[in-house]
Amino acid sequence: MYDTTILQQRIAQGLAEIDMPDFPQNLYGPINYMLQIGGKRIRPLLTLMAADLFSIDEMDKALPAALAVELFHNFSLMHDDIMDNAPLRRGQQTVHEKWNPNIAILSGDNILIMAYAQLAKCPPTKLPSLMDAFNTMAMEVCEGQQLDMDFEHAASVGIDDYLQMIRLKTSVLLGTALKMGAILGNADNNDAQLIYDFGVNVGLAFQLQDDILDVYGDPAQFGKQQGGDILANKKTFLLLKALETADTANAAELDRWLHDDIHPTEKINAVTAIYDRLGVRQLAEAAKQAYADRSFQTLEHIAVDARRKTPLQTLAHSLIMRTH
Amino acid sequence: MYDTTILQQRIAQGLAEIDMPDFPQNLYGPINYMLQIGGKRIRPLLTLMAADLFSIDEMDKALPAALAVELFHNFSLMHDDIMDNAPLRRGQQTVHEKWNPNIAILSGDNILIMAYAQLAKCPPTKLPSLMDAFNTMAMEVCEGQQLDMDFEHAASVGIDDYLQMIRLKTSVLLGTALKMGAILGNADNNDAQLIYDFGVNVGLAFQLQDDILDVYGDPAQFGKQQGGDILANKKTFLLLKALETADTANAAELDRWLHDDIHPTEKINAVTAIYDRLGVRQLAEAAKQAYADRSFQTLEHIAVDARRKTPLQTLAHSLIMRTH
Repeated sequence: MYDTTILQQRIAQGLAEIDMPDFPQNLYGPINYMLQIGGKRIRPLLTLMAADLFSIDEMDKALPAALAVELFHNFSLMHDDIMDNAPLRRGQQTVHEKWNPNIAILSGDNILIMAYAQLAKCPPTKLPSLMDAFNTMAMEVCEGQQLDMDFEHAASVGIDDYLQMIRLKTSVLLGTALKMGAILGNADNNDAQLIYDFGVNVGLAFQLQDDILDVYGDPAQFGKQQGGDILANKKTFLLLKALETADTANAAELDRWLHDDIHPTEKINAVTAIYDRLGVRQLAEAAKQAYADRSFQTLEHIAVDARRKTPLQTLAHSLIMRTH
Repeated sequence: MYDTTILQQRIAQGLAEIDMPDFPQNLYGPINYMLQIGGKRIRPLLTLMAADLFSIDEMDKALPAALAVELFHNFSLMHDDIMDNAPLRRGQQTVHEKWNPNIAILSGDNILIMAYAQLAKCPPTKLPSLMDAFNTMAMEVCEGQQLDMDFEHAASVGIDDYLQMIRLKTSVLLGTALKMGAILGNADNNDAQLIYDFGVNVGLAFQLQDDILDVYGDPAQFGKQQGGDILANKKTFLLLKALETADTANAAELDRWLHDDIHPTEKINAVTAIYDRLGVRQLAEAAKQAYADRSFQTLEHIAVDARRKTPLQTLAHSLIMRTH
């Protein structure tokens, strides 16, 4: 099997070698910028690791699919940042801030097309099934982003609605990245579905960890403002669970803070205290652990020697247990 | 060969039968709306006509590619309308006006993915070459739209720059629609390239006719405000040719009107009079005719019985000579 570091180097090299015209500058400049400000490249790594888990004669055959996954991720970030009016991405100015929203729309469109141009380089016999997996995922990610926007204005959002949203918006991309690798590694349909389910459950646990870290993470490690979700009244698992389980007194206090945007420090402290009283952190940790357990059980069922699964277990564990 | 009316019915039926979830409503509602306000469906018709020109055993094998072309066209219109801040499309409110820009970004993204989902239904042996043709076109259309936006703020734009922009923004889609049909109709590479060139030249002539009609069309037939391009200082073939050929006196008068936005009727009349004095209409007609001639010559070289080419000649003629 390949060392993870080797796979990461191939991804970095593959991204650097993507054919990128330099004209029009206002179209390809922002794309270059977005790809160069980095990210952890977890998703393409999952594609290559899945291909490696099964059997692929030449890892370069899986590289275009891995790059397609990473390009798709960057497309969705560029457009989400416009919709969320986000000033920063990975600590740098977002494209719509550094250029303008029209340029971010069009450059994002072009990254999506570039993702498909990578897919077109995949082995022709695999292309139809790769396209099906990728297209299903891509539409679901759009659906998840729409639900996320809808939730901002929704009077009430249930925990199940929230879990469906994060499944669509973030988890199916992890599952599909793995599934595409499995297809390229000649896995059978059952194993391809199992590794997809593994990825989706890792993604759900990953997102719940994100919600927990916003409130309970070490700000020095997490790198984001602690309590940012609380200040934005973001409908996270913690807030939705608090709204669901609060008694009258806690509900009334929570409601008061949701309408307060002039006492930021007090708001973070007070809402965190309500979360503590209601024990929503423990509920979130339990839900996260359930998804983590399910993901590792699913991985066990894949018809491959257990020792080959160690790198994926290690990576999944680091994603779910991360402190930043 | 198939009657054009039959092909148009298949396209309408195919569009109506596209699998369209009804949830989230704010994602698929705008897509349904965009597809239902219509358009002439010229591009998918070109795909089916090209497949029919060569040999295809079952026309339904070409339908997904035709639908992909039409979906791509609607994606680009939805996003262009945001960037151009256009209030109306086909006489109806644009999606970003009826809903909001974020919804138009995301619904547009989803239409583009739906286009690829149609491509994935094409015969697997044809899929790689169809993807290559489609992806090249899609990136070029983005490049053309970026150049169009760049030109708005450019101090000076040459005729060649303009022709390159309209080739990318509008013509390559016509050429690619035909080429994809040719691929599905088992044309050889030479004929596929010839029908692509035919379509690109028809597209260039079509766009020049659009520029001419804005100023010299019968408003009752054209359906747009006469002189709309003049009022918007739009850098059309006519304006760029006028700027290129004007003597000092005409150039000074033209420059004055370009800076006048408070006398609309006078501006249209005065700029039209300058165009008349400089004979730019004749120059545009001559350029249009040169592209039309080239397109028909290219069509002649395709290795197919001449009588089979009649429907495409008739359609191309109606596009180039249209009065509305």
